[in-house]
Amino acid sequence: MSTTPSLDATFAALADPTRRAILARLATAEASVTELAKPFAMTQPAISKHLKVLERAGLVTRGRDAQRRPCRIQARPLAEASTWLEDYRRIWERNFQRLDLLLDEMKAQEKKTKTRH
Amino acid sequence: MSTTPSLDATFAALADPTRRAILARLATAEASVTELAKPFAMTQPAISKHLKVLERAGLVTRGRDAQRRPCRIQARPLAEASTWLEDYRRIWERNFQRLDLLLDEMKAQEKKTKTRH
Repeated sequence: MSTTPSLDATFAALADPTRRAILARLATAEASVTELAKPFAMTQPAISKHLKVLERAGLVTRGRDAQRRPCRIQARPLAEASTWLEDYRRIWERNFQRLDLLLDEMKAQEKKTKTRH
Repeated sequence: MSTTPSLDATFAALADPTRRAILARLATAEASVTELAKPFAMTQPAISKHLKVLERAGLVTRGRDAQRRPCRIQARPLAEASTWLEDYRRIWERNFQRLDLLLDEMKAQEKKTKTRH
């Protein structure tokens, strides 16, 4: 049984659209809390709360500049989450292949019906 | 801003080690709740609670057999989560490359120090 606490924290942190949007923003460049709060209809304390969750999960670090304390994305936990999901790739690819086969069968059936009429 | 509710539910469902272990078990074959509960030090109601979270996230479906109602993994939400994470691959790969460079520099430095003594 996988009891990796970091995976727990990473997935929990990603289960919120605002936190995912913060990461998407930080993927382009580092930003202060004020800069991060701008595009959201949210107060700075609300954004700070989300940032704390991201920090605890190791997905964001804060710079040392006392005034700005810029936020930076740390992608390592995302790499670990991606590795975990990779184990299931063969399952979803098998399912997509089945769906493709089904669609092909349906198309062939449709063609047959059309040529009959 | 990504407000995909299915991503919220998927990541929240994956934020628990028992639920990840249930998915790992179901990735090998379908199983009844009784079969799923066996390897865990957990009661069937506790397992059923976790299964409900997985079902709501669309990660598990139950068969129609009234007695057994076998659980099956549905990997499509995992594929969606993987696609979301893929956008960040360039970031973690860049970081790993930086780490490699740093290690190379450290090795070169070590070699230099050794040849000097």
